[in-house]
Order: sequence, then C-alpha cells, then structure tokens
Amino acid sequence: MIKAGIIGATGYAGQELVRLLLQHREVEIIWYGSRSYVDKKFSSVFGNVFQIVENICKSDDLHQLAEEADVIFTATPQGYLAGVLDEEILSHAKVIDLSADYRIKDVAIYEKWYGIKHKSPQFIEEAVYGLCEVNRDKVKGARLVANPGCYPTCSFLSIYPLARAGLIDMDTLIIDAKSGTSGAGRGAKIPNLYCEVNENIKAYGVAGHRHTPEIEEQLSYASGKAVTLNFTPHLIPMNRGILITAYASYKKGTTKEEIRKAYEEAYKDEYFVRLLDDGVCPETKWVEGSNFVDVNVTVDERTGRVIMMGAMDNITKGAAGQAVQNMNLMFGFDETEGLRLVPMVP
Amino acid sequence: MIKAGIIGATGYAGQELVRLLLQHREVEIIWYGSRSYVDKKFSSVFGNVFQIVENICKSDDLHQLAEEADVIFTATPQGYLAGVLDEEILSHAKVIDLSADYRIKDVAIYEKWYGIKHKSPQFIEEAVYGLCEVNRDKVKGARLVANPGCYPTCSFLSIYPLARAGLIDMDTLIIDAKSGTSGAGRGAKIPNLYCEVNENIKAYGVAGHRHTPEIEEQLSYASGKAVTLNFTPHLIPMNRGILITAYASYKKGTTKEEIRKAYEEAYKDEYFVRLLDDGVCPETKWVEGSNFVDVNVTVDERTGRVIMMGAMDNITKGAAGQAVQNMNLMFGFDETEGLRLVPMVP
Amino acid sequence: MIKAGIIGATGYAGQELVRLLLQHREVEIIWYGSRSYVDKKFSSVFGNVFQIVENICKSDDLHQLAEEADVIFTATPQGYLAGVLDEEILSHAKVIDLSADYRIKDVAIYEKWYGIKHKSPQFIEEAVYGLCEVNRDKVKGARLVANPGCYPTCSFLSIYPLARAGLIDMDTLIIDAKSGTSGAGRGAKIPNLYCEVNENIKAYGVAGHRHTPEIEEQLSYASGKAVTLNFTPHLIPMNRGILITAYASYKKGTTKEEIRKAYEEAYKDEYFVRLLDDGVCPETKWVEGSNFVDVNVTVDERTGRVIMMGAMDNITKGAAGQAVQNMNLMFGFDETEGLRLVPMVP
Amino acid sequence: MIKAGIIGATGYAGQELVRLLLQHREVEIIWYGSRSYVDKKFSSVFGNVFQIVENICKSDDLHQLAEEADVIFTATPQGYLAGVLDEEILSHAKVIDLSADYRIKDVAIYEKWYGIKHKSPQFIEEAVYGLCEVNRDKVKGARLVANPGCYPTCSFLSIYPLARAGLIDMDTLIIDAKSGTSGAGRGAKIPNLYCEVNENIKAYGVAGHRHTPEIEEQLSYASGKAVTLNFTPHLIPMNRGILITAYASYKKGTTKEEIRKAYEEAYKDEYFVRLLDDGVCPETKWVEGSNFVDVNVTVDERTGRVIMMGAMDNITKGAAGQAVQNMNLMFGFDETEGLRLVPMVP
Repeated sequence: MIKAGIIGATGYAGQELVRLLLQHREVEIIWYGSRSYVDKKFSSVFGNVFQIVENICKSDDLHQLAEEADVIFTATPQGYLAGVLDEEILSHAKVIDLSADYRIKDVAIYEKWYGIKHKSPQFIEEAVYGLCEVNRDKVKGARLVANPGCYPTCSFLSIYPLARAGLIDMDTLIIDAKSGTSGAGRGAKIPNLYCEVNENIKAYGVAGHRHTPEIEEQLSYASGKAVTLNFTPHLIPMNRGILITAYASYKKGTTKEEIRKAYEEAYKDEYFVRLLDDGVCPETKWVEGSNFVDVNVTVDERTGRVIMMGAMDNITKGAAGQAVQNMNLMFGFDETEGLRLVPMVP
Repeated sequence: MIKAGIIGATGYAGQELVRLLLQHREVEIIWYGSRSYVDKKFSSVFGNVFQIVENICKSDDLHQLAEEADVIFTATPQGYLAGVLDEEILSHAKVIDLSADYRIKDVAIYEKWYGIKHKSPQFIEEAVYGLCEVNRDKVKGARLVANPGCYPTCSFLSIYPLARAGLIDMDTLIIDAKSGTSGAGRGAKIPNLYCEVNENIKAYGVAGHRHTPEIEEQLSYASGKAVTLNFTPHLIPMNRGILITAYASYKKGTTKEEIRKAYEEAYKDEYFVRLLDDGVCPETKWVEGSNFVDVNVTVDERTGRVIMMGAMDNITKGAAGQAVQNMNLMFGFDETEGLRLVPMVP
Repeated sequence: MIKAGIIGATGYAGQELVRLLLQHREVEIIWYGSRSYVDKKFSSVFGNVFQIVENICKSDDLHQLAEEADVIFTATPQGYLAGVLDEEILSHAKVIDLSADYRIKDVAIYEKWYGIKHKSPQFIEEAVYGLCEVNRDKVKGARLVANPGCYPTCSFLSIYPLARAGLIDMDTLIIDAKSGTSGAGRGAKIPNLYCEVNENIKAYGVAGHRHTPEIEEQLSYASGKAVTLNFTPHLIPMNRGILITAYASYKKGTTKEEIRKAYEEAYKDEYFVRLLDDGVCPETKWVEGSNFVDVNVTVDERTGRVIMMGAMDNITKGAAGQAVQNMNLMFGFDETEGLRLVPMVP
Repeated sequence: MIKAGIIGATGYAGQELVRLLLQHREVEIIWYGSRSYVDKKFSSVFGNVFQIVENICKSDDLHQLAEEADVIFTATPQGYLAGVLDEEILSHAKVIDLSADYRIKDVAIYEKWYGIKHKSPQFIEEAVYGLCEVNRDKVKGARLVANPGCYPTCSFLSIYPLARAGLIDMDTLIIDAKSGTSGAGRGAKIPNLYCEVNENIKAYGVAGHRHTPEIEEQLSYASGKAVTLNFTPHLIPMNRGILITAYASYKKGTTKEEIRKAYEEAYKDEYFVRLLDDGVCPETKWVEGSNFVDVNVTVDERTGRVIMMGAMDNITKGAAGQAVQNMNLMFGFDETEGLRLVPMVP
C-alpha cells in the first residue's frame, strides 16, 4: 500500500485520479490538493464521492507532500511544476506530471509553443515520457514521468504502427482530432458554458495547437526522421472522449495485409490498445470511463492513402488513467491494476 | 463462483448487467441471451466489451439455461417471463426478473395497468419484491425476485422514511419524475431518435404510467394504509439518471428535526442510500454508473409541505445494479460486491 | 419605423431581442448596450449576425439612450434599472424592463426575496406587468412595462384558466418547473459549464426561488384570493425551453368538460397560446425559437387532481419575445409583428 | 403566389421545407405528401405547426400533384424520383429533387456508388445541379433541379475559391466532415437512437461515402481537372449543423494574401456565403436555422498546407433552404426571399 498525493485534485483530471485511485488496491490517497477549495470537504465539490471520501482539500505544498507521500500527481497548469520542482522533492517521492512541463525534450520548442519560460530545464533530460506502450521499461525506473497529453496519446497510438514500420510517407501526415469538452478544463470561461458548446462544433487552435510539437516529437522517434504535420482539434458537445482521424499516403506497393499486420504486431501484447475488427470504426462511447484506446485503419486504394482512427477517453487514458498506468509500472504493480474498469454504455 | 445467464442481454439493462457482472468476483456469465442477435458475437453489438467478452449471443431457452446456470436474469418485455416460468426452472436456478411480471401482488391491478393477461399468477405470491433496503431478509431466501422498476425504486426510497414514520399526509402525495432516455429502452422507435429527444422535454404517461400502482403498493406497505397518488414522468435529454421531486403536506406540528431524523434513521445503515447534507439537492451526475441513491428533503414552512428528492442511475440501481444487489443477498455474497464502483464525473 | 436601444445586448435575452427586432418591420436597433464589450463589434460576440449587424457595442448610458430612442429594453441584472430610472428617461422613451425590478407591487416582498433595496419604488405603481394575454389594454398605454419572468409566464398561463374560473383549490397548487440552461444566463460560472450541466439534472432554489412571489401575486389577481404555492425549478441539459407541470385538486363535482372549456375560453382569441388537442402533452421542441406557449390539462379522477402543463421558449416568450409583444402593443403595431416565426424542428 | 407540393414532407428535410415555405411570401403549400402518415394531420406529426398548418398528409401521386402545383419538392429516398419522373410531370410543374438521383452526370458512377439502377437516365443531362452560387443562370431556366447534397454543398463552397483559382494541389485534397444527426434522417434505426448518438462520436462510410463522387465532380468542374479525394464524415451529437475541415497543399510561392483574396473574390457578391474575419473559425451555431455558409481559411506555412473550413446548417442550406433558394431563382423571386432568417443563438 503506497501513499499518493494529488495537486490539482478538483480539476477534471484530478478528480478522475481520485475515482481511479479509490478503486486501486495498492494506493491510499492522503492529500487532496486544491488551491481553490482549501479547507473544504472534497466531497462538497465532487458529490460523487460523498460518504466515500471524507478528506479536506489542502494547499499545494509540494515539499510537505513529498515527505508524506510515495507518489505525487500534479494535474496543474503549464509551468506550475517546473516552477516548484527540485531535487529535494524528487528524492522523497516519485512525481507524475500531467502538465506539459517535461514532455518536450527541446526546451526552446516548449518555450515557443507554450509562451512561457521553463524554470527547471535541468529535469527535462531525466523525465521519462510516460507513454507506457512505447517507454514501458524506462518508466519502470523513473523518478519523474511526463504524462503524455490527451491528443498526443490518441494521435500517436493511432499512427505509431505505420510510422514505426515505415509504411507511410510521414510528410503527408494530417491529424484531424475531435474532443469532448472536459478537455477544456473546469475553469469558469464563457466559451465553455453549456449554451456555448451544446449544439455546436468548431475547430480551434488551427495550425497552432500546443500539442502539435509533442506529437511530432514522438512520431519522429517512432519513424526515425523529423516529422512536421498538421493537427487540427475540434470541440465536440459531449463530456468525454477523443476521436482521431489521421490521413497519410502509404508507400507505393504496400498491401492492405502489411498495413493491418503492422497494427497487429504493434499491439498484440497490449491490454489497453484494442485493434478493432476490419471495417469497424472506433467510437468514443466504447471506451468511456476506461483506459482503452480503440484503433483501426482503412486503406483507400482510390487515393493511395490510409485513414487511421483512434478513440479514447480523454480524461482516463488521456490523463488520469495513463498516470495510474505509469504509477503501476513505477511501483511494480500489475500494469492494469485499478484500470480494468469496463467502459460504460450508454 | 456461480454461473449466471442473462435473457435480454442486448437491451440497455441487459448489457449493464454484463458490465457489472464482469466486475464481480463471484460470478461468471455463461449465457448471453438475445433473440435479435443469436449467433452474433456479443461484443459486435456492444463494442465496450471487445476483447473482454468473446461469447456468442444465444436464444432464450430458459429451461436449458436453468440447467446450466445458478441464477437467471430476465431483462425482458412485460409478460415474457410470466409466459415461460414453471416449477422446473425454479427448481434448477434462482430467477431475478427485471420486468414487472411479479412485482404487483394483486393480479387484477397488473392486468389492468399493463393490459395483458398474467399467464402464471401462481408464482406472484412467492415472488419477493427485491427492494433490498426494505425486504433484505426475504430476498435472502427467495427463489424468485421481482426486481423493482426504476421509477418505483427512486420514488419509494425518496419518500419511504416519512411514509414509515407517519409524518406526512399520504393523500397529498405527488411525485414528479424525470428520466434519462435509456429508460425508454433500445427499441428502434421514432420518439426515441436522437433528434426527437435532444433539446426537448415533455411529460408522458400522465395520470396513467404503469409504475404508478407499483409505487402505491409499496408506499401502502410502508405507511400502513392504502395510498393513491399522482405520478408524472418526464423524458430528459440525457442517457442515464432519474430524478424524483415529491411533494406532500407534513402533519401539523412536525418539526424539521423530526423530518430529517426520519431519514437518518431509515438510512443510517444503508451503503447505497446517501442522505445528503442539509440543503444539498441530489444531482443525477453524482450517482451515474453506480448503485447509489442520493436523497434529501426540504421543509417549506410557508406551504406546510416537504419536498422530497432522490437521484439515481436508472439502469444501475434502477435495474441491473439492484438486480446484482439482490443476487448478492440470495447467494450470501457481500451485498456490495461488484457494486462499489465510484460514480463517474463528468 | 421606431428606434430601439438594448441595455444588456450581449446576454442571452439581449441577443434574442436583437434576433427578433432584426426581423421586425417597424423597428431599427440603434443602441447595442453592453458593459463588457464596449467598443467591440456586436457581431464579434455573436457571430450569427456577422454581416447583418455592423454596430459597435456601447455603454449603458440610459439618459443618452433615452434621447435617441423611442423604446429601451433593459435586459440587465436585478436592481440595475431601479437604480437608474428617473422621470427624465421615462419622459423621453418608453421602457420595457426584462429584470424583476418592477414586477412585484409590494416592495417589501421584492426586497425580501431579492435581498436588495429597491431604489426607485415610486415607479412600481405605474409599471404595468407585461403579460399581454391578461393586461393587454394596460400595456397599450404604458410608459414602463415590467416584462414577466420566464417561469412566471409559463406557470401563470398554464394555470390561469382554472384559477380564473375557480375550478381548482388554489391552496393545493404545486408547480414543478424544468428549464433549459440559457435561463441561467451567460455569466462565466462553474455550475453552468458544459460538463457540469450535460448528462445531469437537479432541482435548485427549492422552496426559495425568487420567481415564487411573482407567480403567487399574479395568480392571486386571477383567482381573487391570496395564493401560496410550491414552486420547484430544475436545470435541464438543453439550451432553450421551459416545461411546467402543475398540480392542483379540482373542486368537487367539476367535470372534464368544464375544465377543458375553461382553457378554450381563456385562449380562444390568443394567437400565442395554443391549447393542444386532448391528450397531447406539450413539448418544448414544438415552441423553440417562437413566442408560442403550448398548454394542456389532464384530469386524474383517481386522485381528484388536474395536471396542468405548459411549454415555452424561455428566451423568446419567456423574455425577448414577450418584450417585443409588449412593444407592439405600446406602439400600436400588430401584436404578432416580428413574432410569427415558425418554431424550428429538430 | 405559386403553389408548391412536397413529397416526403414528414422527413427532416421535408418539414424544414414546410417551415421555410410558410415564411415565404410568394408560395402556398398545397400538398403535404407522406406515405407513412396519409390522412393524418400534418401538425399531429410536427407539433411546431399546430394551429398554423391544418392540412392532411397525402399520398405521393406525383402526376396528380404536377397538375395542381407549380413546383414540386421531392425529399425522398434515392431512386424514388428516378423511378417515377416522366415528361408529363415535367411539362406541368418544375421539380426540385432533394435526393441524389440527378446530381451526378455519369450514370455509371451513380449506379456504382448508390448500388441501384437508374430508371430515368434520360433526364440527367437536362437536370441542373442546383448550387446557386455557381450555377445561378442555369438554375433560372431549369425545369429539373438536382438539389446538392449536404456534405457536397459545404465541402464545395469551402474549397471552391482555391480550386477555381488554381492555388492548391487538388491531388492533396482531404475533407474531414462532421455532421449533426438530422443528416441521418428520421428513420427508426437503432444507431440513430438518442442513447447511441449522445456522448459519442465516430466516423462512418470511411473511404466509401456516397457524397464523395458528387464532391469530386463539382470540384473537377471548378478546377478544370479530374479530382480524386478523401472524404470522411463523422456523426456528432447535435441536431443540426455540418462542419468541414479540408486540407490541401498550396502551390509553392502562393501568398496568404492571394489565398484570402481568392475567397473574397469568389464570395464578394454572395449573400449566403460569409467569409469570416481572418483568424475566426466557423461554428455551426452561428448558422443554425439559416441558409448561411460561413467559410474561412488558415495558411500553415510550417507544412505548406491550407486548412479550409466551412459551417452550415445541414437541413437548411444543406437541403431545404437551398431548395427554396433554387425555387426563388426558377420563378424569378428575390433569391433571398423567405431565407433572411437570422440564425438562432443559443
């Protein structure tokens, strides 16, 4: 039984961590950090855990927390952890950061796309990018894990098999992404009001979304060459879920069988990535509330392109679930512990 | 480890049974019965259990099933089980019926409100009304459990403490209910299409909904006198959830404290019924996907009435979850086994 | 052609006024007042009128506006107009107030329920309660109209025929109301975020909602006796629409025919109130975007009660549409001018 | 005043025709054709026009209708009109077909993608593709107009300026489309049930959707060369609206200014196509219930691609609104008559 603390527990990712860790057999949550609700009962904010969680929200004193906890989850705004993290914290507790602070290895790219100065670049090198399906072994030994972004997780896992196998022309890669509204966070902003989102769809961050360099970096590692791509996210009137539709030209002469085989090989041992039957399109509903990513690929011989698709719950596998998966690896638990929840329908 | 069969596994209540039983440590599902999908993979209908459930849908041969299973769940249309049930089935397996066939003790009332002839009234007497919070002991010894309706469960539990304590005038009772659309079932009907339900609200079954006599009967038992009431359901544009708002005049001289105390006493030992803090209104979101019923009461001294409120997930505690709770009691498992799922937000 | 100014034009009611007045043949909008967006293009806030409205948002200088406009609409927070209104304004322009400032005749009741001091009670007497179906003649001659609240409009019109005819026991009256989320306004508040409202339903303001005394006052006038009632609003995951379900005991001996006749007589000459065919329940979808109120009544002989139902668009007939209807009366236009929009389905 | 008949009046496109024509000053609807509801009051199916439309639904006798009407709208399944149309009908009335029967000039392509035999190919040549912004003059003289599909209308108008100006490489064109659920029609099918669509998103018809050849044909005309492209539609949990996100590489050396200018020139005289301000992304909410198409383009110099975006109401400009626009041209009315409805927010 290890002890966990959450900084940013009253955001959507933070409270999902609570939901998952409560159902985990090896963890006890000892710190519900929330600047906005200090001294209030956590369950007065999130009534779903009424009579389940009796704890009071605490401050975000990371040094104190590091002394009390074995693992710290930071579900905080960009720049927060980079501004606080030091060797003392890391020497006491393992840290899983759900922000972008340690995801990108090139600090100049981070600072350009995020528009902030990185305050502790000395930890970037050490941080492990916590995409378990790819970096499983590195995660096991990490003190500091950069939990991947929601769009990057789903985008990468949808494309990875073909990037790795060299079957597509990476220069033709286009990712069209759709996300439920919890991805926009729990901040009180007019564009996220019910009446602004409901019965509406729009693109945003066109040609400039901050998850773009993260996706490019990871796909560069997978394909062995620098990748530049288009990434366009859209806001969808639903709570949870990300759907990725990605397009690329496949290498001349590549067969449908080779393409499908690349997916099968990449994911044959992965519990959380489900390659759907041929012809079945992923749906976000089938993964809601779970750590699954459903992927599939269609070959369009008319145009010489593949359409790669992936569906995922943005706050589970796209944030809190993946963080728990990382924790499981870091502490030697079964990788699926606490994460075998069956998706909920309807 | 017991063996369970589900008849009607591809309806919304049926597949919720699948979700819950897959996460139950003492049960194996051996029969996924579905007339409409015989010989098809269950997971081709409900992709959420892809790579989790490999079974093929079977027919609804209840006699065969009774020989193979320890418990049978029937999530079937009204009249189905009554038309099939016999002593042979009951001698082989315990039966938990999610339809209304054995809920109402007076067969004439059943036949009048449901408009069908009851084909096996001989089992009505034996059947136990499976509202665990009230009939816990009877359920433990039952062969045949009539799983309560969704509206009756939430209505009853919202009103029960005051009915039992005799603090309200039962002749003034009015129940205004709101339900998510999964309550309407998975049948292909125009009124249940997305575009007909979304951005819309309406009452239905006004002064004639079939759950009315079930609620009246149970409240009669609780209050010790015949109850006649108004029950008006409304269709809400959401998937899951029932909210009950019930009104009654309280007996003159009754204090707020007495009223709150009646709730506290009724539910102090109940895991699944959560009496909210004073002044907090139940929300269906706080119970989604769980077996909880959140209740509360407001005393309006201006009008001399109480407003009793309850929120519940209509396909969990209102159907499949309660059925599992009944099964737990019938087989001597911990009553909460498989049902400690934390509600999902948002 | 008259000139109109709107204070609070960038709220939901304000922008609905814009939509309606743009389609009105006798009005030109000359002032788009919005404190939050002064000097910004109105169409940069509400893209629906891009290339239709070129105006810039202005301040809320009511005195200046009164000199330029023939009619002023104030879609402003409670207390705003009461704090500004004076004889000079009223001597220059007619004012239609969409807030509650002049709806309630007893200033003590206003101050108690709204928790603010009324700063210009001298105008309360003069103000006409702008429920056209009841106060048509008074509205015609008014300088200052108190546009009714959304819940009061739909509640009153659903109950009015029986209150007026004396066919129900007013002491037994209970109103259960359901509203789309636009009723909560366009303020950036966490409870109104998409993810907090979607897939959720809850009651709020139980036994204390500020529309209660307004409904009571108007029903008192209609029935000729003081009315005290229960009013419980609920927040529904949809943009627009209010549904009222009201309950009361009918006087002994009253027949179904008398009850239906009371509705027929009350509304036989009303264009905007539609008495539905017997047995048809009002749906908010059928009135969306229009000034209609659909009403109907069911008689439940088992309980001796009537169930009165009404559906309305909360920001059209419940706010901006009714304000335009009042303006039409005040300026001698056809009462339906600009308001014959056919509801939009789906 | 002309007389109009609608075949398929009780589908979503048909009833939208009713809504629009009721607000048109030059048209009277004399025939509400609906096989499923013959002899029923139209307003008993669509309560929005209760007390507005008193007509009874009629059969689909096109010959009889042609004698009585000046214009016939067929909002019918693929193949219906092709199976019935003859010279006699066309000699009596003008026909605007909302199905795909006469949209594609190459009958072999039609038969391959739609999987049905075309029964009256002799009229294909004569039929005018009713995209008013492009074929305005031809529409004016037409007897038979093929009203464009919803996806093709929004896709084409989003891409047309650059295709026409030769600024993009048409071989790199990819269209990612998102549609509200009304596009799936009003048929009672399980995948269109509320609970299947709500809180879910998926692609469908990947690499095989029937609107693909229609888009390709029209873009071929615009660009002067054969076009083969990827088109992927997605089902979105909302009633109305289509959003197009299209990607293409722009010709080397093309400037941002040239790209924007191509849009400005193409649409400077078009009332219904609104080129948004630089940097503003189209949102379906801004066009809901109207005949507008909002378009914009972003130039991504990192990748050398343009992202072309368009938002439209799929049952207004994407079906019924465009049909009325065509009718206006065919009968010499103002092109915007009946179509100046301001979009409704929220």
